[in-house]
Amino acid sequence: MKIASVRVTPIAIKDPPLLNASGIHEPYALRSIIEIESTCGRCGLGETYGDSVVLSDLLNIAPQLSGISLYDLNGVKTVVLAACASDTASSVTRSSTALASTLLDKRAAKAYAAFEVALWDLQSQRANAPLVDALGGAVRTSVDYSAYLFFKYAEHIDTPYAADPWGVALDADQIVSQARSMISQYGFGSIKLKAGALAPDAEADCLLALKREFPAHPLRIDPNANWSLPTAVRIAERLGTALEYYEDPTPGLDGMAALHKTTGLALATNMVVTSFDELRRSIPINAVQIVLSDHHFWGGLRATQQLAAMCEVFGIGVSMHSNSHLGISLMAMTHLAAAIPNVAYACDTHYPWQSEEVIAGDRVQIKNGKVEVPRTAGLGVTLDRERLRTLHEQFLSCGIKTRNDNAQMRRYQPDFPKVKPRY
Amino acid sequence: MKIASVRVTPIAIKDPPLLNASGIHEPYALRSIIEIESTCGRCGLGETYGDSVVLSDLLNIAPQLSGISLYDLNGVKTVVLAACASDTASSVTRSSTALASTLLDKRAAKAYAAFEVALWDLQSQRANAPLVDALGGAVRTSVDYSAYLFFKYAEHIDTPYAADPWGVALDADQIVSQARSMISQYGFGSIKLKAGALAPDAEADCLLALKREFPAHPLRIDPNANWSLPTAVRIAERLGTALEYYEDPTPGLDGMAALHKTTGLALATNMVVTSFDELRRSIPINAVQIVLSDHHFWGGLRATQQLAAMCEVFGIGVSMHSNSHLGISLMAMTHLAAAIPNVAYACDTHYPWQSEEVIAGDRVQIKNGKVEVPRTAGLGVTLDRERLRTLHEQFLSCGIKTRNDNAQMRRYQPDFPKVKPRY
Repeated sequence: MKIASVRVTPIAIKDPPLLNASGIHEPYALRSIIEIESTCGRCGLGETYGDSVVLSDLLNIAPQLSGISLYDLNGVKTVVLAACASDTASSVTRSSTALASTLLDKRAAKAYAAFEVALWDLQSQRANAPLVDALGGAVRTSVDYSAYLFFKYAEHIDTPYAADPWGVALDADQIVSQARSMISQYGFGSIKLKAGALAPDAEADCLLALKREFPAHPLRIDPNANWSLPTAVRIAERLGTALEYYEDPTPGLDGMAALHKTTGLALATNMVVTSFDELRRSIPINAVQIVLSDHHFWGGLRATQQLAAMCEVFGIGVSMHSNSHLGISLMAMTHLAAAIPNVAYACDTHYPWQSEEVIAGDRVQIKNGKVEVPRTAGLGVTLDRERLRTLHEQFLSCGIKTRNDNAQMRRYQPDFPKVKPRY
Repeated sequence: MKIASVRVTPIAIKDPPLLNASGIHEPYALRSIIEIESTCGRCGLGETYGDSVVLSDLLNIAPQLSGISLYDLNGVKTVVLAACASDTASSVTRSSTALASTLLDKRAAKAYAAFEVALWDLQSQRANAPLVDALGGAVRTSVDYSAYLFFKYAEHIDTPYAADPWGVALDADQIVSQARSMISQYGFGSIKLKAGALAPDAEADCLLALKREFPAHPLRIDPNANWSLPTAVRIAERLGTALEYYEDPTPGLDGMAALHKTTGLALATNMVVTSFDELRRSIPINAVQIVLSDHHFWGGLRATQQLAAMCEVFGIGVSMHSNSHLGISLMAMTHLAAAIPNVAYACDTHYPWQSEEVIAGDRVQIKNGKVEVPRTAGLGVTLDRERLRTLHEQFLSCGIKTRNDNAQMRRYQPDFPKVKPRY
C-alpha cells in the first residue's frame, strides 16, 4: 500500500491577543494541514506549523512522497532529509549519508513529523486499530492537560474581528478569574501561567494568587527565558514551594544549570533542550529536570517516544509542550502521551484559546482536564472540507506569512524591545 | 484482534565444541520457541534463550497473555514486569508503578523480547507487510553478517553424536583454514575471532595470520573479558592497526575506559553495556565506542531501536551480538538491523555453526555474507512442527537445563579455572 498523493493546505485560525515574552499573538495563528491519500483510498491527517519556512518545505516535499510505502517511514525521512539538506542549522552532526542517521536536524524534523503523523493515521486505519496501538498501546485511557493561562488584552489592535469572550487579564484578580473560567469549563487539574510579559514580581504575585485560590492544583510559570539568572533566582525565592516546576525562566543550558544548582528547583524546558544534540549537552550539567516534548519539532511520534526513553534512562521527567493548534494536533498529542509511560505531568495545550476547527463534528472534548484516547481506528478525527476551505481562505486573506509576536507588539507600543531577557 | 494463546516450547540443538573464555560449548544449545496465536487464526513466532530461568519466566507468563490486544505491547510489558517483579537484579531504578517505566530490568527484558517479536510478526502479517515495515521500513535490502571463527576441538567429549565437519582449530593454520571454509561457503566480508580461550599471544598470532590471509576483511577479536588490563594493552600494541574494533578484551566499564584511554582503539561490547543503565554509566567515561546490541536481552526490537537512537545521540557505534540460534532469531535480527540506519558493521551470527532448524523449508540463506530482508508478510519464516517436536524431544533427553561452558570444560580438564580474567 503506497502513498498516492499528499496535499498540504495552509490555514489561519483566529487567535486571541495573548501576551508573552516576545510580544503578543497576532490575530491569526498559522497551521498547515496535511492529507496523505493512500492507494487503498484512505486518507491520513497531520497538522503542523504554517509559517513560511515550514510551509515551503512541506509544499516542496509533498509531491516527492508519492509511490513510497505507507510503512516506509525511513524512506520518507530520506526524502525529507534530502529536501532539507540546505539547512545550515543542523542540530546533530550526521555522517555523510542521510541513511546513516536515525535523527533529523531541526528543520527536517518539523517537516518529517507532519507527514509521519498522517502515515501513522493511515497505518492504523488499515490495521483497524487506534493510532496509540501503533505506538505500543495505551498505558492510560485518557491524557491530562493543564489550564494554560495567559496575560492578555481584551482585543486585538484595529479590531480585525469581535473580541474573544475571555476579556482582559493583566493583574492577579483577572488571572484568577481566567483560571476559574477555564477550569469550570474544562475541569483542568493543573495550571500553567505563561509569564515573561509583565514585570516579574507582578507575575509572581499572580502565581501566588493562583496558589491561594487553587491550593491543590500543581502550578507552573513559564517566562520564556525572559528573566536574567539573578531575576530567576530572586523569583524562585518567592515561588519555590508553590511550583510543580519552573519552566524556562532564564536562557541557555548554562543559565538553567546554574539556576538549578542555586535553587534546587525542578526546571522544565521547551527552549534549551529542543533536539537530541541539546539533550546530550544538557545531561552532564543537569541543566533541566523535565523535558517538555513536542512531536511537531522533535521529529514525530516515534522520535518523541525515543526522547522519552532517553529521558527515563537519564532520570529526566517528560511532559508535553504546545503551540496554538487544532484538533488534529491535539489528537496526535493524546495518542502519543497515552503510549509514553513516563509522561508524568499534565500536558500543555492552547486548545481552549482556539474557537475554530478543521475537524468534522464537535471540537475535541476536554472533560475533567482530560482528553479520552479514541478507540476507533487511526487518529480518530476526520476533516471538514468546508471548514478547511474557509480557514485556507482566511490564510490567504489575513496577510500573515510568518509569526512575529514582537512586530505585532510594536504596533501597540513602538518602543517595545526585541532583546531578551528583558528582566 | 487479541492473543488467543501462547505456546512456549524449549528445544535443544546440536552445538559444536567451540571454545571460549568460560570453557567450551556443551553438545546442545538450548532455545525457546514462542508461538502466539491470535483470535484471527494467525500465528506469530519468537525465539530466545532456553535456559531454565528464562524458560521458567516464559512458561509462567505465557498463559497470562491471552486476551491482550496484539498491538498492546505496553500491556504485555506490564504483565511481564509483574511476573518478573521478584527479580532482584533490576538494571534501571524504576518508580513505584510498573506503568511509569518504558524500560525493563534485565530479566523482564529477556522474557518480553521473545513475546514482542512474535507480536510484531502477527501485526505485520495482519498488515500484509514485512516486519521491517513495522519498525519504520528497510534502509537496506540485505544485512551484512560476519564470519564468526572459534577455536574448537574436533569433537565433544564422550562423542554424543558424530563429529561436526569443521574439524579442530587450535592454531593459526587451522583458524585460517576455518575462515577460508566459512568464507567460501557464505561469502562473509568481515571476520570475528572468538578469543579468550588460548594464551593471548597465540590468539594474537592467529589474528595476524588472518590479517595476512584476508587483508581486505575488517577483523575483530573477542576475548570475552578474559584479559587483564595490562594484557589487553600489550595485545593492543600487537594488533591495533589490524583491528576494525577490539571487543570486550578486559572486564568492567572502568577497565574498558582505561583501555580506550591508553590505546585509542575503538572498543566494542556486549558485556559491559548490556542495559540502558550501563549505557548511562558508560557515556561520561567513554568506556565503549561500539555497542553490540541484541534484541534478545535489550528488551525487544523497539527497545533496540531506542538503544540505537541513543547511541547515535552520544556518538556511539552500533552493531549486533549473537548467541547460538536458529532461523527465527536470525530473521528477527535481519528485520531489525535493516530498520536501524546506524548499524554500520557486519552483525555477529552463530548460524553457520548450527546444523538443525525449526523453520520450514531450507535454512536461511547467507550469500555474499548477507541475509536478504524478506518482502513477504511478517517475519518471513514459518515453523516445521515435525522439526520442532524432534528438537523438543532432544531438549527433554539431552539432560542440559542451564548452559554451563565452564563445567563442561572441567569434564575435559578437571582443574580448568573458573576465575576471569585468566590472562
